[in-house]
Amino acid sequence: MIRRGVQAIARLGHPGALPGASCVLPRLDLASAFASSTDNLISRFCLQKTDLKDYALPNASWCPDMLSLYQEFLEKTKSGGWIKLPSFKSNRDHIQGLKLPSGLAVTSDKGDWRIFTRCIPAEGQGYEYVIFFHPSEKKSVCLFQPGPYLEGAPGFAHGGSLAAIMDETFSKTAYLAGEGLFTLSLSIRFKNLIPLGSLAVLNVEVEKIEDQKLYMSCVTQSRDQQIVYAKSSGVFLQLQLEEESLQ
Amino acid sequence: MIRRGVQAIARLGHPGALPGASCVLPRLDLASAFASSTDNLISRFCLQKTDLKDYALPNASWCPDMLSLYQEFLEKTKSGGWIKLPSFKSNRDHIQGLKLPSGLAVTSDKGDWRIFTRCIPAEGQGYEYVIFFHPSEKKSVCLFQPGPYLEGAPGFAHGGSLAAIMDETFSKTAYLAGEGLFTLSLSIRFKNLIPLGSLAVLNVEVEKIEDQKLYMSCVTQSRDQQIVYAKSSGVFLQLQLEEESLQ
Repeated sequence: MIRRGVQAIARLGHPGALPGASCVLPRLDLASAFASSTDNLISRFCLQKTDLKDYALPNASWCPDMLSLYQEFLEKTKSGGWIKLPSFKSNRDHIQGLKLPSGLAVTSDKGDWRIFTRCIPAEGQGYEYVIFFHPSEKKSVCLFQPGPYLEGAPGFAHGGSLAAIMDETFSKTAYLAGEGLFTLSLSIRFKNLIPLGSLAVLNVEVEKIEDQKLYMSCVTQSRDQQIVYAKSSGVFLQLQLEEESLQ
Repeated sequence: MIRRGVQAIARLGHPGALPGASCVLPRLDLASAFASSTDNLISRFCLQKTDLKDYALPNASWCPDMLSLYQEFLEKTKSGGWIKLPSFKSNRDHIQGLKLPSGLAVTSDKGDWRIFTRCIPAEGQGYEYVIFFHPSEKKSVCLFQPGPYLEGAPGFAHGGSLAAIMDETFSKTAYLAGEGLFTLSLSIRFKNLIPLGSLAVLNVEVEKIEDQKLYMSCVTQSRDQQIVYAKSSGVFLQLQLEEESLQ
């Protein structure tokens, strides 16, 4: 979701780049960039000490499947390996402390901005989700429960709501696993509808990192893996960002 | 968005159908289905006489570009050709009078369900959009203005929010142009970010209808066509539904 369609894409030989397409954002100065470690990225992203509300915590709307699988993964965080990612109202909270490419600088925190997947604050009505990330294996699991405001066909989640949570899980994984910031492409094959109020589990993996691009895959299925809801792939542009001290 | 992953997909030779994937919905009885005319579909969809709120009408949040292009298309509806589609809170309102395949029947209108792309009722905060449809040319134009609750990167629309409005415009077009009800696949290449509060124009066309599938394309760009935000394609499963009298 942290995305930027830039001339850099054309320069990287993106096959779909249009000769006539203008650039709405200035070029990235790659020359001044250098790598951040995964640990550094995670510590900046997770902000252990904060008074920001974490929306990725259980509430009364969570179905039993969602709650018990959450507890299972929470146990796994204690023995190392998995990390539970917090989820704040805005990416402006997650990306603080990182200097973004020129043109993507955060200019103000005064407005009531919300990350799209947290656009509905009422518990259980919209998106309920939590992402667990495994740094060394570069993979994520997202527990996703769509509420009645995410409807498409009566009683089922809108395909666009699944596309959005896929993009969100991809992008957070890409960012933490390899500084992948901008979605270049997203491709989804739908198999079955997700009933509203039920749990869908997204399993995201980084397939490869090549030529400044992260290639990722996602299988979305029921907890028992008997129903595949969708399979998808995403390509993210990897950008190494300048570091600066946390404010 | 009206979507159903069914065994019918596997029967139609969907390349991604998984041998082990179960079906959450019953089979469609194609034997009892017959075609509805486009005019019939449109008149049922649009519901000229209704007290339902139409969310696809101008409000104070619309930017000048959005407002003036809306007026331009509204003029085109007077000379025939283009139709402005109303947009109600739920697909349950749009699809009344159509008998859906068994398993997708609307069982209750009591709950507070919302179509995902109308999940945020506050004007200008979430999705602002209106779709114009051209029946004889089987194409649509969607005027889309993302609000601050649709944020991804600070100041720009979340890619998932664009994916969702693409899916929604595809599906409404597929439904009216050829009874395409269920998204089989969606593929997006992102080019440039859409600034929040600005206008993006989605141009959707039906490329072909073949083997009960609608193949569609979409180019999303700025009003002056100088900035391409994204290009996408979608495949929808065509289902001919039983007709019944309007209640």
